[in-house]
Amino acid sequence: MNVEIISVGTELLLGNILNTDAQYISRRLSDIGLTVYFQTVVGDNKERLKKAFKTAYERADIIITSGGLGPTNDDLTKETGAEYFNKKLVLDEKSLDAIKEYFKSLNRKIGEGNKKQAYFPEDAIIIPNGNGTAPGCIIEDGGKVLINLPGPPSELIPMFENGVMPYLTKYQDGVIFSKVLRVCGIGESFVAEKIKDILDKQTNPTVAPYAKEGEVTLRITAKGKDEEEAKRLIVPVEKEIRNILGDYVYGVGETTIEEVVSNMLIDKKLTLSVAESCTGGMIASRFINVSGASNFFIEGDVTYSNEAKVRRLGVKEETLKKFGAVSDKTAYEMAEGIARAAHTDIGLSTTGIAGPEGGTIEKPVGLVYIGLYFKGEITVKELHLKGNRQRVRNEATIEAIDMLRRKLINAAAIK
Amino acid sequence: MNVEIISVGTELLLGNILNTDAQYISRRLSDIGLTVYFQTVVGDNKERLKKAFKTAYERADIIITSGGLGPTNDDLTKETGAEYFNKKLVLDEKSLDAIKEYFKSLNRKIGEGNKKQAYFPEDAIIIPNGNGTAPGCIIEDGGKVLINLPGPPSELIPMFENGVMPYLTKYQDGVIFSKVLRVCGIGESFVAEKIKDILDKQTNPTVAPYAKEGEVTLRITAKGKDEEEAKRLIVPVEKEIRNILGDYVYGVGETTIEEVVSNMLIDKKLTLSVAESCTGGMIASRFINVSGASNFFIEGDVTYSNEAKVRRLGVKEETLKKFGAVSDKTAYEMAEGIARAAHTDIGLSTTGIAGPEGGTIEKPVGLVYIGLYFKGEITVKELHLKGNRQRVRNEATIEAIDMLRRKLINAAAIK
Repeated sequence: MNVEIISVGTELLLGNILNTDAQYISRRLSDIGLTVYFQTVVGDNKERLKKAFKTAYERADIIITSGGLGPTNDDLTKETGAEYFNKKLVLDEKSLDAIKEYFKSLNRKIGEGNKKQAYFPEDAIIIPNGNGTAPGCIIEDGGKVLINLPGPPSELIPMFENGVMPYLTKYQDGVIFSKVLRVCGIGESFVAEKIKDILDKQTNPTVAPYAKEGEVTLRITAKGKDEEEAKRLIVPVEKEIRNILGDYVYGVGETTIEEVVSNMLIDKKLTLSVAESCTGGMIASRFINVSGASNFFIEGDVTYSNEAKVRRLGVKEETLKKFGAVSDKTAYEMAEGIARAAHTDIGLSTTGIAGPEGGTIEKPVGLVYIGLYFKGEITVKELHLKGNRQRVRNEATIEAIDMLRRKLINAAAIK
Repeated sequence: MNVEIISVGTELLLGNILNTDAQYISRRLSDIGLTVYFQTVVGDNKERLKKAFKTAYERADIIITSGGLGPTNDDLTKETGAEYFNKKLVLDEKSLDAIKEYFKSLNRKIGEGNKKQAYFPEDAIIIPNGNGTAPGCIIEDGGKVLINLPGPPSELIPMFENGVMPYLTKYQDGVIFSKVLRVCGIGESFVAEKIKDILDKQTNPTVAPYAKEGEVTLRITAKGKDEEEAKRLIVPVEKEIRNILGDYVYGVGETTIEEVVSNMLIDKKLTLSVAESCTGGMIASRFINVSGASNFFIEGDVTYSNEAKVRRLGVKEETLKKFGAVSDKTAYEMAEGIARAAHTDIGLSTTGIAGPEGGTIEKPVGLVYIGLYFKGEITVKELHLKGNRQRVRNEATIEAIDMLRRKLINAAAIK
């Protein structure tokens, strides 16, 4: 059974946005063993979209579209699908209620265009949208299937997972199962070198390394007659990789490093405070994005100015004068200062030069110090990072969280 | 003259990588007024690639491919193009020398597979590759053009700029110029309703609304005989839109809302501090990502716990007890507290329920209060947001920055 992906949107043809939807859908289809031979991108144009349906159905049985379900007149995907299959569009009262409810909860009136989002080709299966106003739908007709999903990834992804994946299981032919290992503190090329023997001999399972924002993921993918068999095939390969990479592997699947650390903190009943200069709120923001952060996260201070470092954290004016705001001494005093002020077991600090301005020969852009106060003991780490401002800040954030993770691995449960 | 983009690579169909090449090529073609109606992705398979050529030439005169020029056996793009046009592959000595030279500079011997990278369809125009071993080529035959480029962006982009753009100028038919207006504080459907007349009558320029993470962008695209003419055509449409949307329009092009606000703060010589609960560092992080933030950003406090709200910001325990941490009163005291503690002109605060847990009937997930202290005067805004934890936090962040922007529009320069 093969599937074709059609992304609808003139903004894709103009290069305004990246087609992340097609990648996401492709990856998930591959996970369940459904083949994709073609992806197509077409603009907001009824005739061309209809032609794209025709071409696609000559070589595939299932089409999944993204985009073109919005409230404006150039959103045409459902209308074109209905025309293609000679179906009328009919109002779905339940969807209309949900859209009205959505606007009511925002204290706003429903827009005129939003009403058309409640119309669907007759007999379509409707996929509710928990994060926006455009429900999706599935049309089945003469052995062909058309699945329409909205374009914004924040709406498409949950709808795909909750509404489309369960639907597609009936077309599955064998099962592909993937397990993702998440790796931190080591670059992609070093990972590839360390596990070269595994990469060279791979057939089933396959192992694919992928670098992403300061982390590396390793996707182990096995094909089996059922999930159990596929999972069984993964076990020895995962074990071999873990033996080689040790605690560079911090988690599996979609787990983030901040989730791993948050769970460790909750487990060990430890409290955390953060004092950030160059990362300016990014570390706090990551921890607070973990639901349940209130169990351990007491306070974060973004002490970007020297004044705030002194007043809030008790960093000595002398330290700033003698060693500078970006120095191991300052990181040290920041970590200690925030932990003492917030009365927490742990204090994590960052200070660095994120660029593009502010670098000197002695202290170039990318120089970052991370301070870690842990129950009275303080450690400072010096980093030399590469890239633009956003990247330096992001990598410093991950390195800081990883430094805490490594500390916690060795720490005994206290309290 | 219209162009079709065909990206070749099974890794794209498996969702292993994002198709950034197609976006890049599309954007550049649009810059010079060449139209793209379709993009296609196809795997490393000769038969399917040939079919993709056939389909594409039924609707376009120029095909640009990316990928499939590598040294391995599954790299087939040139071979397939030659077959499609009935041309032999012939050795280009100059390219072979360049490939040998490339390996020599790496102190390595040329691989057997790399030799095939020096073979091209007869009469092809060859595009040298300064950053890798795969030269590109252009085939012209019977009014049709096929341009083959390598897949890695670090090779494709310079080759496109140096080899393809100059070649394409002869097919250029006028120039397309786009201007993007950035809109905040109003949803996509409302924007569309407000400028419905403009959207309905659009021909040249065209106007395309697009929703993205709590913002809306409006792309005005004009076609003219040169850039000057295209720009002139945009002026009245932009003016009309700005008249209707007023200060919902916060900027143009790639400007972010935090950059706009940062510039206003620097201009007016105002200082800012931030006290965040539910947004937990996201507001601070956005401001600090603006190079030059040290001119106005004094301090941010992530007071996620009640304890920190009381100790750091002077929020009254009574307020927390009587009204709760998520209340207009708490937002009020947080904004005032941070401004007083940090001695800043402005204090911005957030407190809310980001979910998924913690909601009640009176205070549901998505309820957020924003407090704004501005030189002694305090305003609080109540929001009802939708979506998952990340989305609620992100929209609260944008709303808070936008609230400050609106205040600054009306504020006189103060010292």
